[in-house]
Amino acid sequence: MNKPIPQAEFQTPRVTTGALPASRKVYVPGDLYPDIRVAMREIDLHPSANEPPVPVYDPSGPYTDPAIAIDVERGLPRLREAWIRARGGVEEYDGRDVRPEDNGGAAGKYLAREFPVKHRPLRGLPGKPVTQLEFARAGIITREMEYIAIRENLGRKKMREEAEAKIAEGQSFGAEIPPFITPEFVRDEVARGRAIIPANINHPESEPMIIGRNFLVKINANIGNSAVASSVEEEVEKMVWATRWGADTVMDLSTGRNIHNTRDWIIRNSPVPIGTVPIYQALEKVGGVAEDLTWEVYRDTLIEQCEQGVDYFTIHAGVRLAYIHLTANRVTGIVSRGGSIMAKWCLAHHRESFLYEHFEEICEIMRRYDVSFSLGDGLRPGSIADANDRAQFAELETLGELTKIAWKHGCQVMIEGPGHVPMHKIKINMDKQLAECGEAPFYTLGPLTTDIAPGYDHITSAIGAAMIGWFGTAMLCYVTPKEHLGLPNRDDVKTGVITYKLAAHAADLAKGHPAAQIRDDALSRARFEFRWEDQFNLSLDPETARDFHDQTLPKEAHKVAHFCSMCGPKFCSMKITQDVRDYAANLSDNEKADLERRAEEGMKEMSEKYREMGSALYLDAETARKANEGL
Amino acid sequence: MNKPIPQAEFQTPRVTTGALPASRKVYVPGDLYPDIRVAMREIDLHPSANEPPVPVYDPSGPYTDPAIAIDVERGLPRLREAWIRARGGVEEYDGRDVRPEDNGGAAGKYLAREFPVKHRPLRGLPGKPVTQLEFARAGIITREMEYIAIRENLGRKKMREEAEAKIAEGQSFGAEIPPFITPEFVRDEVARGRAIIPANINHPESEPMIIGRNFLVKINANIGNSAVASSVEEEVEKMVWATRWGADTVMDLSTGRNIHNTRDWIIRNSPVPIGTVPIYQALEKVGGVAEDLTWEVYRDTLIEQCEQGVDYFTIHAGVRLAYIHLTANRVTGIVSRGGSIMAKWCLAHHRESFLYEHFEEICEIMRRYDVSFSLGDGLRPGSIADANDRAQFAELETLGELTKIAWKHGCQVMIEGPGHVPMHKIKINMDKQLAECGEAPFYTLGPLTTDIAPGYDHITSAIGAAMIGWFGTAMLCYVTPKEHLGLPNRDDVKTGVITYKLAAHAADLAKGHPAAQIRDDALSRARFEFRWEDQFNLSLDPETARDFHDQTLPKEAHKVAHFCSMCGPKFCSMKITQDVRDYAANLSDNEKADLERRAEEGMKEMSEKYREMGSALYLDAETARKANEGL
Repeated sequence: MNKPIPQAEFQTPRVTTGALPASRKVYVPGDLYPDIRVAMREIDLHPSANEPPVPVYDPSGPYTDPAIAIDVERGLPRLREAWIRARGGVEEYDGRDVRPEDNGGAAGKYLAREFPVKHRPLRGLPGKPVTQLEFARAGIITREMEYIAIRENLGRKKMREEAEAKIAEGQSFGAEIPPFITPEFVRDEVARGRAIIPANINHPESEPMIIGRNFLVKINANIGNSAVASSVEEEVEKMVWATRWGADTVMDLSTGRNIHNTRDWIIRNSPVPIGTVPIYQALEKVGGVAEDLTWEVYRDTLIEQCEQGVDYFTIHAGVRLAYIHLTANRVTGIVSRGGSIMAKWCLAHHRESFLYEHFEEICEIMRRYDVSFSLGDGLRPGSIADANDRAQFAELETLGELTKIAWKHGCQVMIEGPGHVPMHKIKINMDKQLAECGEAPFYTLGPLTTDIAPGYDHITSAIGAAMIGWFGTAMLCYVTPKEHLGLPNRDDVKTGVITYKLAAHAADLAKGHPAAQIRDDALSRARFEFRWEDQFNLSLDPETARDFHDQTLPKEAHKVAHFCSMCGPKFCSMKITQDVRDYAANLSDNEKADLERRAEEGMKEMSEKYREMGSALYLDAETARKANEGL
Repeated sequence: MNKPIPQAEFQTPRVTTGALPASRKVYVPGDLYPDIRVAMREIDLHPSANEPPVPVYDPSGPYTDPAIAIDVERGLPRLREAWIRARGGVEEYDGRDVRPEDNGGAAGKYLAREFPVKHRPLRGLPGKPVTQLEFARAGIITREMEYIAIRENLGRKKMREEAEAKIAEGQSFGAEIPPFITPEFVRDEVARGRAIIPANINHPESEPMIIGRNFLVKINANIGNSAVASSVEEEVEKMVWATRWGADTVMDLSTGRNIHNTRDWIIRNSPVPIGTVPIYQALEKVGGVAEDLTWEVYRDTLIEQCEQGVDYFTIHAGVRLAYIHLTANRVTGIVSRGGSIMAKWCLAHHRESFLYEHFEEICEIMRRYDVSFSLGDGLRPGSIADANDRAQFAELETLGELTKIAWKHGCQVMIEGPGHVPMHKIKINMDKQLAECGEAPFYTLGPLTTDIAPGYDHITSAIGAAMIGWFGTAMLCYVTPKEHLGLPNRDDVKTGVITYKLAAHAADLAKGHPAAQIRDDALSRARFEFRWEDQFNLSLDPETARDFHDQTLPKEAHKVAHFCSMCGPKFCSMKITQDVRDYAANLSDNEKADLERRAEEGMKEMSEKYREMGSALYLDAETARKANEGL
């Protein structure tokens, strides 16, 4: 069933490049650090709109800049390398040698080709700050922080008056989103542990981004081959493809063979932070037998991945021996892969999890590379029936405890959350996470709000994701239409990403992010004014919007038509409204007052009639009963 | 651009029939009325499950019962005709003659064929009860009410112990959902105006259903041709197709020619209530010129449609002259078609809406046929920017006033709601609707929670729909992926219906409907036990679930495999959990206590370590600053 690509047949991954429709990549320089160039996308509107271009957050990296030549064999430009070296406190060293087990023992023609360019890894020196948290605590604004401040403002420096005039009117549930993001605000949020900047010093290709409840809600896309499907090439393209449509981070969840080499290709070509679940690879190294896992194998895997440049690790250190039996009566037991592996290990040895026992050593390792924790929820519910149970919350309490340990060590931390939760139980999750984990960012998988729609779980979960994002979750892990059914393909990845982008955006609007509504309003104006091209171009997925329109009105002439196939030309409410608007514009204040007076009179008359009717119009109950009895 | 079907080419509509996978149609007899046979669907599970079949609510009518021969040329069996005649108080009479303008002047080969079977219409006699509201007020439980009570319980009579043992734990926001629905409860809710049973006495083919906040959340699917696309055949099949996947009512929003004949084919073949917006046809009759509309033309259209059997009318009687100028500064003006037509009329004549002025006559007409009101929100917001503005709420206040007038006349009433609303403004809509309209059922279009995802507006709106359904909305009008872009085709209708079914179901779970979780739990157990076939069969869309699974693991053998392509055989957390469960089952109480003791000790040790560390691990701020300055 394994289908690794024989090396001889290995192709350079073909990735999707080029600008999105009507879009240009722009680079905004820093003030504190004039050498930084913050990438964003601007969507140009039709000249008839007489509106400035609409800037949008853009995690797609150089792939969407036609001016940059892409060479997947060399990887992306190492944007942050000079920044990291300039800060000092790091040493270059000979990394760990790649061993056969790192690729699951794949050899010969079954071994995926190594990434062609080698970089010697960096690591932090003892006693020197290396993580963004350590710099933030020391009052230092890094280049990453200024980059993020500019990025999060969505180009509002240009539209400053507009931004300042706008009062954020959302409901933020205690989040403290400022009207304008400053570098100092970024630093402060990182220092308080309320936000993280996942940025391994060995992944300098990544563009700085932040995950925290006072920033734009982010989304993660999972990719990765499994033992039964997919190849290196497919996974690299999935990563590029996912970021093209808006994924803010990508998790490589590969299992099976060639894990190490696949990951190298992905990281070296990734403009966004990469997350992994190291236990997956550790398990491969011991032949897939959970009981055979050891701290030493796990530790070695952590270092291997730290050196490669993974930006955050999911670590299921909260799955403690004592909690496992709490899952026995669940409808769906333990559904987290990492959680179930650790549970099996704990039970087989009848001892405490080695992840929990060695947690401080893990912190020490991760700190040296500035790898962020994503504390895994190994006991998350796998069904509506199991939501918010004792097992889940016991683990969350432990994650809160571990958060504080990791903070002590200078590590950045976020917390993973469920899963499957009906709507009325979602907010409890958010509130408990904030309370237990000292406001460390929450990173949830959906949650799915019902279990009855396999094939549509991107939607069952987008409902939960939008809500929990509004309540305060900082990053939403996407779910594709294939969830529970199979490995997502390229189309599924796109559907999942777009679905989660819209959910995250809905959350930004509801939280009251001051810049979020700019794009909605621009698109709504385009819709009202029948600027079809602008409507397509401003949408999250211009290709699909255009395609859907063209299925019924394919001709070019219809792109300028003041109607669509849904209503036809006579019935177009937008067109009629334009007439109404022209009329209202000519209404004098006296005329308006007169209208209101007449309306009030009408309402009074209606009320009087209503009173006069009294109950006269009610059919006499007895009459009615008789009529019925006449059956 | 018009493409009506020449009569010579008219085909008998081909509709989709046959049972859904592993499903049987069952008919449950009444207690009060043993002659009624309440249709529902039962999904059979694999024998290894050792579980009873799962009953599900099923609006698909006879089309999914292989025992019933379908003849679209004759229409469905007239289930309720004997009930209505038995109650008395109605007269059969010669209906209004069909006139050329009823079909938009289509003639000769452009005229769609008439429905072959004619029925003389019924109407209520003066002073006799005819509407379900009138019977309910008189303390009479109709057959429709008992049918609904049985239907709403989802077959729980069989599972009575289970239902009674279950405590509804949702958050209901003041709704009062009983643990078991009785016919008397149905009557009482209808009498109070908190629920409606849309059931025109001239649409006896429809199976009784209820719309109210203390019942299962319902969904509506819009179909209908427009001047530029679609034919009679397509629309009839869309109706059958929509109900196959779960549409509880269908609105025929046809415009253009052949409206009358298209509607006849749809109603005579529809097992669910049909709604329309009569102003669309009235406008066709005056050549599409809003200013030329008259009360007489509108009145005639109402009677035409009452006689045909339309079950509810959207009537935009709340668009008053005085409110129109309130929309002038909106980003998207008036987006309701009916609303904009009426606004245009009001302004052209500079007088109050004839729908408002003639509202009592409208009530009198509708009462005689038991056509329910769906008071239209002609001033609903068409963009995030316009949500919850004065124009919208002024109209809602008027709708509240009209609700009471209609109630006085014995008419059933529901209220239409928006539209485009960001998440944090949704609940305000629900609360205001309940307060203004005396708890009459709310019927909302989504709402869409962001405007930036055309092509995905079934999802942007499913988020809002699930939430507002939870808060108390009784029926959700679906939105398809083509919303704002074009006329939905068959696939879009299915996607829209499934998306709204899952949103409505998520709302039922969150409200605490005592039977809602039965299907989730059955599916979750199937998932946990690798009963792939059961997982497909229990899902809202078995075809898509199976297809997605088979894309990566097509072989029959994989349907019994204890893994899927997402994780492969080694990593399957479900499999590992089964091992964990076996282990935990053998754990004695002493062993459990011992585990807990050890966990507490571990946590204590960790806490102590944490305290000991103090701030020692924090890097000295000065050291860090210096490191940075060394740049």
